[in-house]
Amino acid sequence: MAARRARKLKATNEATDPSSRVARFGPDRPLSLDSGKVLSPFQIAYETYGALNEARSNAILICHALTGDQYVASRNPITGKPGWWESLVGPGKVIDTGRFFVICSNVIGGCLGSTGPASLNPETGRAYGLDLPIVTIGDMVRAQTMLVDELGIDRLFSVIGGSMGGMQVLEWAASYPERVFTALPIAAGARHSAQNIAFHEVGRQAVMADPEWCGGRYIDEGRRPEKGLAVARMAAHITYLSETALHRKFGRNLQDRETLTFGFDADFQIESYLRHQGMTFVDRFDANSYLYMTRAMDYFDLAADRGGRLADAFRNTETRFCLVSFTSDWLFPTEESRTVVRALNAAGASVSFVEIETDRGHDAFLLEEPEFFAAVGGFLDSAARARGLEDAP
Amino acid sequence: MAARRARKLKATNEATDPSSRVARFGPDRPLSLDSGKVLSPFQIAYETYGALNEARSNAILICHALTGDQYVASRNPITGKPGWWESLVGPGKVIDTGRFFVICSNVIGGCLGSTGPASLNPETGRAYGLDLPIVTIGDMVRAQTMLVDELGIDRLFSVIGGSMGGMQVLEWAASYPERVFTALPIAAGARHSAQNIAFHEVGRQAVMADPEWCGGRYIDEGRRPEKGLAVARMAAHITYLSETALHRKFGRNLQDRETLTFGFDADFQIESYLRHQGMTFVDRFDANSYLYMTRAMDYFDLAADRGGRLADAFRNTETRFCLVSFTSDWLFPTEESRTVVRALNAAGASVSFVEIETDRGHDAFLLEEPEFFAAVGGFLDSAARARGLEDAP
Repeated sequence: MAARRARKLKATNEATDPSSRVARFGPDRPLSLDSGKVLSPFQIAYETYGALNEARSNAILICHALTGDQYVASRNPITGKPGWWESLVGPGKVIDTGRFFVICSNVIGGCLGSTGPASLNPETGRAYGLDLPIVTIGDMVRAQTMLVDELGIDRLFSVIGGSMGGMQVLEWAASYPERVFTALPIAAGARHSAQNIAFHEVGRQAVMADPEWCGGRYIDEGRRPEKGLAVARMAAHITYLSETALHRKFGRNLQDRETLTFGFDADFQIESYLRHQGMTFVDRFDANSYLYMTRAMDYFDLAADRGGRLADAFRNTETRFCLVSFTSDWLFPTEESRTVVRALNAAGASVSFVEIETDRGHDAFLLEEPEFFAAVGGFLDSAARARGLEDAP
Repeated sequence: MAARRARKLKATNEATDPSSRVARFGPDRPLSLDSGKVLSPFQIAYETYGALNEARSNAILICHALTGDQYVASRNPITGKPGWWESLVGPGKVIDTGRFFVICSNVIGGCLGSTGPASLNPETGRAYGLDLPIVTIGDMVRAQTMLVDELGIDRLFSVIGGSMGGMQVLEWAASYPERVFTALPIAAGARHSAQNIAFHEVGRQAVMADPEWCGGRYIDEGRRPEKGLAVARMAAHITYLSETALHRKFGRNLQDRETLTFGFDADFQIESYLRHQGMTFVDRFDANSYLYMTRAMDYFDLAADRGGRLADAFRNTETRFCLVSFTSDWLFPTEESRTVVRALNAAGASVSFVEIETDRGHDAFLLEEPEFFAAVGGFLDSAARARGLEDAP
């Protein structure tokens, strides 16, 4: 319990005063939002790995998923766990930080140090809560362009991300094609489906049903909607796995006992597993931020924002694309990637597409999948040669 | 709001004093439960349609699903809606009440008049709440055998049900083969999968997270865990539909407006639809009963209860089986029915199996599906001839 308390305290601090680097944008550099509102002042918490080369041509921006953060290849200060993509990113890894300058920032609306609902609203001196304007994937990316400007980078060698991160990749490629040499949207789609919106709505209702949520003002009230957020996470977590993987890992195995208890305790391993997922999540994540992140994904619809034709989002693009999907991913099924591939083909873009055979569901993009890593590695190597980057030493 | 209050009051009354017929079992006729406990006294609320013939050979027992009830072919007293299977059951329908004597009872643990957690515990004079012993699919069926005894019926012409109802059908066929001439398990399986247990656990945690749940004693406290139960229903409801159907019905269509609101109101039709499903459900269903029903389904594992070999559940059976599955059902995919079919074949049983092509998901079993109706009708006709039943007049 002491460890959990420590994590919660750390999470609260990281939301406003992060361990990572921070880029601060004062009143002279406001962030224009898709809602028509303006966020100012605001800050972006980010990490970098490796060194920018003299030509400033080796920078890779990695975009994180719904509950991810900037600690892509370094220890998370709250959980103490390794970076969430450390298997892919690091010295000598597929995304080699000995060769590339890797940037990863916490998205706007997040809770790991970039301005979000847990940040102080300068107008009131209290946490924003629901007074923070809704942010979109477009707003997250617009904020990232300001960070990339700040770092003096004109054109990114690559923008890479999975799930919500993949949405950001597509948004970058569509809105700032001249700044993106290669784009790797992984386990993503050009819009959120009705079923995905439905699952997000269940999660939001679970949070808002918790009386500790206090209409979003729980930080001011010194409370925490932990039960509601845990239920939201449990429901979402099921969608990250495949039926096959659940069956293989848990099946109907019982938890620490030989027979059924004929009660409502966690009899089955899958039950304790889910409860654990819910419990650990609430220690590290802000409930309002969860509402904002899910809303941003729901709102994402690249074609609708561009007159209804997805191919028009990529007209005359020179960006090289590599899309990856996973066979057992039912949150962003392969068909979603295929739709993007077809639009890219229609737009005459350079695109490669790999569907990885795996039973690990949507979460596969975060796991060690040799075929996936090989595809990313091969694509980046070839693009690096085309961009005139030296090989890794 | 007055209508909702009236429905809630009606639901409370129906739980203890149902509009339907009631069979009461006194202290001399206790119900032995799989947990080793005993339920006594207890009652079963049921409806019948049509007339029992002289040979007592034309009775069909219909078993309801998770949140179903005994009003299979007559108006539900709480909602005022037609019976839940009125498209299939009635005079001149596929299950012709001019020809068959149809029985449908509220399951033990339910909340429409059979003994359940909202019933009075005779030992305390208050609602059982969680003091009701856990009930299993086996317990539900054992109670039904006592009702069928009470009605003077030795052998049922048929036992028919979908989803949790289909589990009861399989339990009947496995435990009382001599009493079942034909069995029709529809959109069901011989055990609950890890993913299905996971979704149920999310629902239970949503209910239990609601402070109005009061550790299960909300009736005594005059409270109602409506928000938690609504979230549970919303999550479950997604699993009853298919991704394709959700896309076809709702897609990303906006609700009563032209543009996004940039807020957390129901922007998308799918959101208001789900909220509506949650809200109407809590008016008619008891939260604790929802816990008991989901637990009964989770515990169901026909093979495990019989030494681990499913075929052994059906050794030397003379029951004729007809199984039906639906292509887009991801809660009980066709593979679950195939597993049962293979076991029945291994046991040398008479079995026919139909997979219906539809995009309506698990809910298809409750909807007008001509091919499904034709399959059931054809199977029953042929069995009726074999049983020496006259044709419908």
